Amino acid sequence: MFASVHVIGTGRAGGAIAGRLRERGLRLTSGRDADPAAELVILAVPDASIPEVAQRVAAGRWIAHVSGATRLDALDPHQRRFSVHPLQTLSTERGPEQLDGAWAAIGAETDAARERARWLATTLGLRAFEVADDDRTLYHAGAVIAGNFLVTLYRAASRLMAETGAPPEALVPLMSRTIDNGFALTGPIARGDWSTVEAHLRALEERAPDLVPLYRALAEATRP
Amino acid sequence: MFASVHVIGTGRAGGAIAGRLRERGLRLTSGRDADPAAELVILAVPDASIPEVAQRVAAGRWIAHVSGATRLDALDPHQRRFSVHPLQTLSTERGPEQLDGAWAAIGAETDAARERARWLATTLGLRAFEVADDDRTLYHAGAVIAGNFLVTLYRAASRLMAETGAPPEALVPLMSRTIDNGFALTGPIARGDWSTVEAHLRALEERAPDLVPLYRALAEATRP
Repeated sequence: MFASVHVIGTGRAGGAIAGRLRERGLRLTSGRDADPAAELVILAVPDASIPEVAQRVAAGRWIAHVSGATRLDALDPHQRRFSVHPLQTLSTERGPEQLDGAWAAIGAETDAARERARWLATTLGLRAFEVADDDRTLYHAGAVIAGNFLVTLYRAASRLMAETGAPPEALVPLMSRTIDNGFALTGPIARGDWSTVEAHLRALEERAPDLVPLYRALAEATRP
Repeated sequence: MFASVHVIGTGRAGGAIAGRLRERGLRLTSGRDADPAAELVILAVPDASIPEVAQRVAAGRWIAHVSGATRLDALDPHQRRFSVHPLQTLSTERGPEQLDGAWAAIGAETDAARERARWLATTLGLRAFEVADDDRTLYHAGAVIAGNFLVTLYRAASRLMAETGAPPEALVPLMSRTIDNGFALTGPIARGDWSTVEAHLRALEERAPDLVPLYRALAEATRP
């Protein structure tokens, strides 16, 4: 579909995407200024920079961004445009293989754009689903809740473990298996054991009071 | 250390523990009334039932509970006592192998009890660490935050995905990789992008207002 791609942005997303496209044998260029010969220009830049960077790209070729929260009109004035957001946490310590098996939210306004967005997702090793512009923020909030706030849970729980002399890494098999078991809820709230929840809150008040609002909001949201 | 064990309780924990001890070749009995010949009686019953069940067990042999939050004096009047809490979410759809690689919080008041608690943890396939009675509630709060509230995050994020027409299972590779990457924080809060956080809150106000307090507490706890 595209034989030559230019990637602007060398962060975690830009690095993994460029690496994967190179592996796929595409003619790849990168750098701040888009190669005029590239058939597709991918912007892997911070969300707030997308409009400005898009405006600097000469008209006439396809352009895409890889942001989760950003609407397609951020790519104005380009009309041949789409987006592919890898729904994955990316690390500079991993290569393009970290895209394998992840999903991607694509954005497109025309069938031609949709076809190209699916092509790019598939070429990157991602499974595509479409998210409308008006749903972008809500979708991205979901991604942040599932991914970033999982880090928040681990950090909070680790603090409590360390406070009791327990090794925080002991939480890892518990968290991994919770995912592997299809997120089945066990534990006190599943058993309706609210006296244990109250005991937790009293212990937190005493020894980690800043975690009380977090625990309370999570317990409330877990209530059946 | 023990050649014969009686397990009271046939729930998720009791089932996995009995199955594993049987695999290890121990003489295993089970049921509401402890076999008088058993050298160790394990109570795998609801936390609130431990004192009553312990009192029914004839004195003279070792006794243990497998609760995370419960102090050792719940096993009164027995003095030869300890506890081993598998820090794992257990499913009736899995067998004893689900204990492999998990950790266990042990409780003990004497060297003899500690030695026996470590023996039981190791025999079950668990890696032991000790948690003092006074730290039990805080430890257990940590386990609930890491394990149970991970389910809460998935459910909340899934709702938002479904609301935008995205497949909730697309969150799974993101969550698994977040663990595999050592809980490195990426995303808007890691980038200090608070305008995206504010946009999430506005979208939630409009389309999932009951999740606003949860999102807000999590974002606040994630702030560096």
